[in-house]
Amino acid sequence: MADYQAPLRDMSFVLNEMFDAPALWASLPRIAENVDPETADAILEEAGKITSGVLAPLNREADEQGCKWDEGEVTSPEGFKEAYQTIVEGGWNGLGGNPEFGGMGMPKTLVAQFEEMMQGANMAFGLAPMLTAGACLALNAHGSQELKEKYLPNMYSGVWSGAMDLTEPHAGTDLGIIRTKAEPNDDGSFNITGTKIFITWGEHDMAENIIHLVLAKLPDAPKGPKGISLFLVPKFMVNDDGSLGERNQFSCGSIEKKMGIKGSATCVMNFDGAKGWLVGEENKGLNAMFTMMNYERLGVGIQGVGAAEASLQSAREYANERIQSRAPTGAQQPEKAADPILVHPDVRRMLLTMKSYVEGGRAFSTYVAKWLDISKYSDNDEQRKHAEGMVALLTPVAKAFLTDRGLETTIIGQQVFGGHGFIREWGQEQLVRDCRITQIYEGTNGIQAMDLMGRKVVASQGKLFELFAEDVSAFIEENSSDEALRPYLEPLAASLERLADTTEHVIKQAAENPNAIGAAAVDYLDMFGYTALAYMWAKAVKAAAPKAEGDTSGFYTGKLKTARFYFERLLPKAVSLAEGIRSGSDAMMALDANEI
Amino acid sequence: MADYQAPLRDMSFVLNEMFDAPALWASLPRIAENVDPETADAILEEAGKITSGVLAPLNREADEQGCKWDEGEVTSPEGFKEAYQTIVEGGWNGLGGNPEFGGMGMPKTLVAQFEEMMQGANMAFGLAPMLTAGACLALNAHGSQELKEKYLPNMYSGVWSGAMDLTEPHAGTDLGIIRTKAEPNDDGSFNITGTKIFITWGEHDMAENIIHLVLAKLPDAPKGPKGISLFLVPKFMVNDDGSLGERNQFSCGSIEKKMGIKGSATCVMNFDGAKGWLVGEENKGLNAMFTMMNYERLGVGIQGVGAAEASLQSAREYANERIQSRAPTGAQQPEKAADPILVHPDVRRMLLTMKSYVEGGRAFSTYVAKWLDISKYSDNDEQRKHAEGMVALLTPVAKAFLTDRGLETTIIGQQVFGGHGFIREWGQEQLVRDCRITQIYEGTNGIQAMDLMGRKVVASQGKLFELFAEDVSAFIEENSSDEALRPYLEPLAASLERLADTTEHVIKQAAENPNAIGAAAVDYLDMFGYTALAYMWAKAVKAAAPKAEGDTSGFYTGKLKTARFYFERLLPKAVSLAEGIRSGSDAMMALDANEI
Repeated sequence: MADYQAPLRDMSFVLNEMFDAPALWASLPRIAENVDPETADAILEEAGKITSGVLAPLNREADEQGCKWDEGEVTSPEGFKEAYQTIVEGGWNGLGGNPEFGGMGMPKTLVAQFEEMMQGANMAFGLAPMLTAGACLALNAHGSQELKEKYLPNMYSGVWSGAMDLTEPHAGTDLGIIRTKAEPNDDGSFNITGTKIFITWGEHDMAENIIHLVLAKLPDAPKGPKGISLFLVPKFMVNDDGSLGERNQFSCGSIEKKMGIKGSATCVMNFDGAKGWLVGEENKGLNAMFTMMNYERLGVGIQGVGAAEASLQSAREYANERIQSRAPTGAQQPEKAADPILVHPDVRRMLLTMKSYVEGGRAFSTYVAKWLDISKYSDNDEQRKHAEGMVALLTPVAKAFLTDRGLETTIIGQQVFGGHGFIREWGQEQLVRDCRITQIYEGTNGIQAMDLMGRKVVASQGKLFELFAEDVSAFIEENSSDEALRPYLEPLAASLERLADTTEHVIKQAAENPNAIGAAAVDYLDMFGYTALAYMWAKAVKAAAPKAEGDTSGFYTGKLKTARFYFERLLPKAVSLAEGIRSGSDAMMALDANEI
Repeated sequence: MADYQAPLRDMSFVLNEMFDAPALWASLPRIAENVDPETADAILEEAGKITSGVLAPLNREADEQGCKWDEGEVTSPEGFKEAYQTIVEGGWNGLGGNPEFGGMGMPKTLVAQFEEMMQGANMAFGLAPMLTAGACLALNAHGSQELKEKYLPNMYSGVWSGAMDLTEPHAGTDLGIIRTKAEPNDDGSFNITGTKIFITWGEHDMAENIIHLVLAKLPDAPKGPKGISLFLVPKFMVNDDGSLGERNQFSCGSIEKKMGIKGSATCVMNFDGAKGWLVGEENKGLNAMFTMMNYERLGVGIQGVGAAEASLQSAREYANERIQSRAPTGAQQPEKAADPILVHPDVRRMLLTMKSYVEGGRAFSTYVAKWLDISKYSDNDEQRKHAEGMVALLTPVAKAFLTDRGLETTIIGQQVFGGHGFIREWGQEQLVRDCRITQIYEGTNGIQAMDLMGRKVVASQGKLFELFAEDVSAFIEENSSDEALRPYLEPLAASLERLADTTEHVIKQAAENPNAIGAAAVDYLDMFGYTALAYMWAKAVKAAAPKAEGDTSGFYTGKLKTARFYFERLLPKAVSLAEGIRSGSDAMMALDANEI
């Protein structure tokens, strides 16, 4: 297995050459004061060192060991505590956090690269900072000044970690039916009682305190999703002077045995009159949660890219080193018993598919991060609103498409190894098992697709889709005379048009048929993703082409050739998806339960 | 998790209603003397009882326990020894075996159903009878009368198990470069020395003896694949009276830690001058191996179907029981807190995709088994030759397409469970991990695709493809006036034509470009598989339609509606695959190693 190396070269290409992130940062005053290109480079370089040097080496052993549960206490795998301390000392937990409370205020475009490295190096570990950052976001956006002052600084530093407590045994996708109760006390606090499951890093030994954000229902709350409130529930009570007090009334009842991310603790949390404080308004807990959802969901999409990158690194190395059979055109290394398997077209098909998804996915996640930065930091209302629309539209695509392609990529990366890919010591199978969860949590990919198709595309009557379509069309128009881009602009335009036609078609169907959205959703999101990645690869060509001549590193010429592969081999998948969507919902809904 | 139930109803549909297997059996004299419809039903029923009642209950715990290695001895998971004894007592190991040596002489069309049940119930266990049957096949086809008499009866009974020793650390796909040596002794035996890896059930405690078939090179053997011979190497020497003698000079050095099929032992075998006997001719060991390959490869495809069926059973049950959110058209069970998730179009899309692949796959594996039966048992030379061509063509498709769709199906089945699908206790994630190996062993699916595209389609200049095309075309023609089939015949014909065009295109390209075969192979096999399954679903419609009226069980109407779903939603994938293949090999071969 190749040692994970942070893909700094490609991240620099995406940030600087494809998206001119420094110009973006300079245009956003609250970002400009925190970061300049030199700072950004230094951060990326240091992040590369820590993720490759500290987190990656712990990854495989942590998978073997898992976490240990004993009477409510959870012990993390060997080395995690020390690694977490490294993250705390570097301030990495608060990289994108609000400077008012000790965060570093870095743009998401930059933070996204750090996230990808961390998740690619060690996903089980990476979940702890990820969940903490998510909890900070919700708290920063909705908590009272008092709560923020009391909790955020130690969470941004990572001395305390965060956890999100949403799911219950009978309520996953459907949070409207949760049963956890919050009863008000006279002092303004609440007593929280109920059972939460699937709580990532809900209990562990890496941080001094764990701050849970818990969804619960007030006694007189309306039924359904509009009767849910959000509460901050610390593991240890925090005294007014900031010191830790007694332990709160909740504990970890058990941890799950899982397919992957075994180095992380997935906890059952039992709240037994635990003391908590309201975050945001009563009965608006789901809104508060959704604040952080866009960030978290992009973060999960980035996990897919990270795992896929790690798999690609190993597969590429193996394909160059493993010798087996001869090239179809005759021996390439006759002095050896066989040729490296890289000579075979099908091995190249596998590697180029991986590369297409990894590098295209990295660009796409950065593209979405760009809109997040603008939506959060722009001083221009119109620009901000436009960016918010893009974020709303693109986030479910990033979450689902990047994790679907992430799993596909890790499976291909395992296949490149043949039988050795199935054996644990080579590491490729762990990436498959780890990556699999990304399609499930933070809203399954089916739910993402419903969000895209229903709440975003159909509910806006296509207006949100238009934002994206206009962006792609503008690119096509601006570059119509670019020689290098010429072979790609026509298929990109055709792909966009096909997507636009399909969008219109589903909007029309949905007006008459409530099942039309669900029937189209997953295939539509996939189609959207393939088109979005085509746009990313066209942008990569634009950035790489002027530097390709005389490029001996292979970096820029490799970009051009991979773009060609993507357009010829992968983009055509959108054609079939469109055809399937056109058939509508009848074939699915016509069956009674006993016919399935 | 649903308890696995052998899908006897659908197997009966496939055998009796789709393929009229009794008529086939009656037409083959050597089969007719062993089986009639009543016997077949009794066998299937008993197989259902054993697989559901004995093998399935051991499956999950075996995955948790794994096998134990201690100083060369391998202990199988709890209950495996007793279960193996049940298989021995029922004579299941020799179900398809040569009656001359104690086999039951049953047709593959029937044996395939037993195999699917066994693999669906417990794949890790099922590998032991599967490998034994494979070893018997090779021995029966190529061994001397003496070897057959000495070994086959105890192998068919299962008192002794079989193992196949091909792979070495440096030689997997490329067996031409193996290093294991066979040195002749004066008594006609050979001393075998070398290391083999990935040897399934190479060592264990379930059978009294283990008979290894080992590929090795004679001292003066030609280089490459034409210098490989096959040897029978027993764990315990067998005396002339059939009693066991001393232990042979080889042992299990370790067992692998794997992603799945953890209940099975995957052994490193160290041969240190072990005594062996030549099977078949010197230097023709690969030929002898390929004899059993068609059987084994179909068997692996069937593993994909079995795992997918198990996943579907659980997913179907869960989708009916799990309540979450409301149907898009309004509450279906207003008395409950939410509706069963089966009401959602996307959940139906998932279940119908699974059902399409499982039932279509079962039909396709039985279709290939039919050609195997004819090729092996027909007394008519022409008919036999025709069937041999079909087997050669269709076997790689069955192996790769059914396992690719098998993994896809188990992944979907896991997704239906949401977060619970990732947790081990629900069993869905094990099916994913177990099924994953089927895409890798017995020749990776990439190798299957090369076999189909290169050795079968291009090497025969399309003649083998024509056999299949004619079969489909004849079906279309025969049924042109069938009302129920009408909606399917045109898309089936279009799909066949597209496949034929693509076939011709690649054959032309391959004449000028040695890389054309490898560049097209995997997508071509996929396209072939989608077309073949369309043919199967059309056949299912033909069989089900006359019985659909007044059908209250939902079985026949479910077949018709699933066929519609398959044609509308899944078959269109072939369109994109064809487009990708047309782009040829340039996009893959244009890159230098440093550009990938």
